[in-house]
Amino acid sequence: MDRLTRQVAFLTGIDRLKNIIRRTSLCDDSRLENSAEHSWHLGMMAMVLAEYAEPGVDVTRVVPMVLVHDLVEIHAGDTFAYDVAGNGDREARERAAADTLFGQLPDDQGRALRALWEEFEAGETPDARYAVALDRLQPILANDRSGGGSWRDHDVSRAQVMTRMRPVEQALPAFWPTVLDIVDRYCAAGLLRR
Amino acid sequence: MDRLTRQVAFLTGIDRLKNIIRRTSLCDDSRLENSAEHSWHLGMMAMVLAEYAEPGVDVTRVVPMVLVHDLVEIHAGDTFAYDVAGNGDREARERAAADTLFGQLPDDQGRALRALWEEFEAGETPDARYAVALDRLQPILANDRSGGGSWRDHDVSRAQVMTRMRPVEQALPAFWPTVLDIVDRYCAAGLLRR
Repeated sequence: MDRLTRQVAFLTGIDRLKNIIRRTSLCDDSRLENSAEHSWHLGMMAMVLAEYAEPGVDVTRVVPMVLVHDLVEIHAGDTFAYDVAGNGDREARERAAADTLFGQLPDDQGRALRALWEEFEAGETPDARYAVALDRLQPILANDRSGGGSWRDHDVSRAQVMTRMRPVEQALPAFWPTVLDIVDRYCAAGLLRR
Repeated sequence: MDRLTRQVAFLTGIDRLKNIIRRTSLCDDSRLENSAEHSWHLGMMAMVLAEYAEPGVDVTRVVPMVLVHDLVEIHAGDTFAYDVAGNGDREARERAAADTLFGQLPDDQGRALRALWEEFEAGETPDARYAVALDRLQPILANDRSGGGSWRDHDVSRAQVMTRMRPVEQALPAFWPTVLDIVDRYCAAGLLRR
């Protein structure tokens, strides 16, 4: 296949991310969110919240990073954050998925997008720390708007949420009071286990 | 409201773009696409197809532009490309929607995002021409994969599609043969009126 044909095959293939369903509800609680619209939302957040990121963060890299961060789910599926068994082999499943997915593209582009995804997964650069923090912040804001969202039906504890939200504390400290306020209210309402 | 509160209100408010339904089907024809996941898809296309854009296009501006390009639909609704009456007052409806939408943000950010949207709408800069071409190319690729998609049920003519696709011919000429091939095949199959 020529270069353009491979690119079109990749771009129509990733349409399947619109059918990968997350555990998080939309803010209006009308349905569960899919990973494509979630990725769009993170891109918007990366743009609007840039002033709270640590110095040195390059938003022009973070926006592409969040657009690609869930692509491997097309082949590996979405793993719920609080699914202990599912997370045991998540890394191996996602690496195999990345081989398939990014291998569809011309080599230079496949390597570049895979590197962005791996940087996100490692979460060690300032850009990746900001991206991961956004990926944690978005569902808690949606859970708050939807009246509990993914916490309601999955017997989630306060301690689990606090561990999950640690990247927000570290990379978006301006939002830590917001996170604590939401967690405390949902504990008080009995939707998060103490 | 303080700055952070306004930003959070904007970012949770734009969740509604996930419920703005377009006429285009997903590639697997399982359902219609929404404008949030469509915007994500354009962001991915902007990254992968950058080599075909005219010289001077800055992808780091185009990706944010396509992420915001449909936001006004939250208040103005999606207007089908081939809806003549709906397109008559589309511009006025969308300008009023932009006042409401971007007015939620702190002034500096509201102005910046609105300027990006207006640049897209005007379609005159190299960045906007590339973004508009992607916005036209994505649904025709989806229509092809889904076996006709939005053309099937709306009595669309070849001439209407060709007019709609002119930005692809101008800003992404490498894709013009692909467009012609799709249009010719769907005319031959009787799904596009000659």
